[in-house]
Amino acid sequence: MQRGKASIEFEEPPVILSDASVAGKKEGEGPLGACIDVIEQDDMLGMENWEQAESAMQKRAADLALEKGNIRRREVRYLFAGDLLGQLIATSFGTVDLEIPLFGLYGACSTMGEALALGAMTVHAGYAQRVMAVASSHFATAEKQFRFPLAYGNQRPYSATWTVTGCGAVVIGRAAQDGREQDLPRIAGVTPGRIVDLGAQDSMNMGAAMAPAAVHTIRQNFEDFGVDETYYDKIITGDLGEVGRKILLDMMKQDGRDLTEIHMDCGIEIFDREKQDTHSGGSGCGCSAVTLCARVLPRLRSGEWRRVLFLPTGALLSTVSFNEGKSIPGIAHGVILESGTV
Amino acid sequence: MQRGKASIEFEEPPVILSDASVAGKKEGEGPLGACIDVIEQDDMLGMENWEQAESAMQKRAADLALEKGNIRRREVRYLFAGDLLGQLIATSFGTVDLEIPLFGLYGACSTMGEALALGAMTVHAGYAQRVMAVASSHFATAEKQFRFPLAYGNQRPYSATWTVTGCGAVVIGRAAQDGREQDLPRIAGVTPGRIVDLGAQDSMNMGAAMAPAAVHTIRQNFEDFGVDETYYDKIITGDLGEVGRKILLDMMKQDGRDLTEIHMDCGIEIFDREKQDTHSGGSGCGCSAVTLCARVLPRLRSGEWRRVLFLPTGALLSTVSFNEGKSIPGIAHGVILESGTV
Repeated sequence: MQRGKASIEFEEPPVILSDASVAGKKEGEGPLGACIDVIEQDDMLGMENWEQAESAMQKRAADLALEKGNIRRREVRYLFAGDLLGQLIATSFGTVDLEIPLFGLYGACSTMGEALALGAMTVHAGYAQRVMAVASSHFATAEKQFRFPLAYGNQRPYSATWTVTGCGAVVIGRAAQDGREQDLPRIAGVTPGRIVDLGAQDSMNMGAAMAPAAVHTIRQNFEDFGVDETYYDKIITGDLGEVGRKILLDMMKQDGRDLTEIHMDCGIEIFDREKQDTHSGGSGCGCSAVTLCARVLPRLRSGEWRRVLFLPTGALLSTVSFNEGKSIPGIAHGVILESGTV
Repeated sequence: MQRGKASIEFEEPPVILSDASVAGKKEGEGPLGACIDVIEQDDMLGMENWEQAESAMQKRAADLALEKGNIRRREVRYLFAGDLLGQLIATSFGTVDLEIPLFGLYGACSTMGEALALGAMTVHAGYAQRVMAVASSHFATAEKQFRFPLAYGNQRPYSATWTVTGCGAVVIGRAAQDGREQDLPRIAGVTPGRIVDLGAQDSMNMGAAMAPAAVHTIRQNFEDFGVDETYYDKIITGDLGEVGRKILLDMMKQDGRDLTEIHMDCGIEIFDREKQDTHSGGSGCGCSAVTLCARVLPRLRSGEWRRVLFLPTGALLSTVSFNEGKSIPGIAHGVILESGTV
């Protein structure tokens, strides 16, 4: 149950019954394109504005996760969901039609980690048979929220990341009681992260702001579970990008740990840096959520990976705090995912 | 455990070990003034801007809750916290120094209900011995976020509410294992709410947007626990104000239930409508959080109230969705609080 200072170990790990990913055209042209369930060719999804498009994407991902798992909406007791926008409007308008009690979450791009953690905690405790975790982002809503109007065509430094247009939805349940086969990916434990603020102030370099938080959560996870990097097949951060990855590897080297081979970053996986002009990589709640569904879960299902530490990372800034000269605190929530086939 | 369609009943109810409220000058001059722990005479709290002031308020409330309960910071395993601002900046900067793993929450003004629910669920499941729930709002940060610059001195219709400058912090724990006396207020159950959107579009009348969500959660609570209004000494909404209260009472009357006597609204309690020019009442995450600490918990401790349904209400809008002509969905999370003395 309680494990070490900050972690939780599940005696009967909740399983991931079903999942779905929906993403935009650019993401569809990237390395994960073939593995994403739905590629929307119109980034507006036929809606009137970007925010409604992001909401529609949440709805489609949630509906598809239910459909793929042959699960009815009313069999999902609680929803854990969030996005990057002020007051979570993509989530509010995207999930209202599901008519499922909602715990709205904000962890910046770490939201999928937060949602998986709380969802698994809820299922494991017996508060629900099935819950759903959803997180989304949209390039255009994020640029509008955090940066410049798209029409400015402003230049971006090489340290900047490209917000993923995408949504991942995951149904978490209890396999045994569910009468389902036992080889589903399971959530074995979680290490909820705390805010780490080393004073990074460059909103065009969020990898630098988040890497120390990721390092903190990895260290805490190792300490709490009494393990090291050899325990995992992969340690998968959310959206550090190339710059953040370098900082993470450097910081871990100071602990005498070489994560070069074992570390993977969803932001680096989802785009082709050379061909797609995304600079440091992808970012946004949708980045780790889509990569989870399109890359991580399939490899756990096939048994190619036996155990990974999935670690969505978030940069806790707003235009208000940024314009007031504040730093960019980071947070990273760790989730231990295991293959059910081994 | 699972109770009915959407609720949770705790076999061994977690208790509220300690709490603290911090509020602004106007709130101090209101009917609850004498019961609020700290009244800040300077709404800037000596900081450079409003957002930092709100963060400082969170820090003070959290520190005071620990101090009053003689609890050390590192004895609190997880933090459940949120505020109204875009990307939760009041929370990010307010809680970073606590160095406690954070679950960032957004439920608009319903956040204290969401935090109490998840906090109690976490403690009851044995994931933590002690957690803290924190929610804040600030009149000036909210006006800046949602409405007009204060310097405009814009007029407000009578249906508008006044955002409370205040923060409430509550430490939730397990009494038995804690070696503490058994007469602490306890969290007996929760009814997490779902989004209800009846199409209200007036951001100056949020009571109308939230009342249907409150009604939905009350009905769900009654159904799930097989009770009615006689089960509670009070049913306490967060910030419906005078307008929302009227709608709630009317809607409940359609069910054949008269809640006139039993219903109380934190937004109506916290300000003196006649003398303080607050129109429909108070609002904001801080409204229900401060009223919980200053009015509700003391009456549960004294045994004056034996059982209440505490129901913080949230209006899920942003300036972006509002300007795009969208409606204002509402949400309300129900928490059953019981006196430990009876």
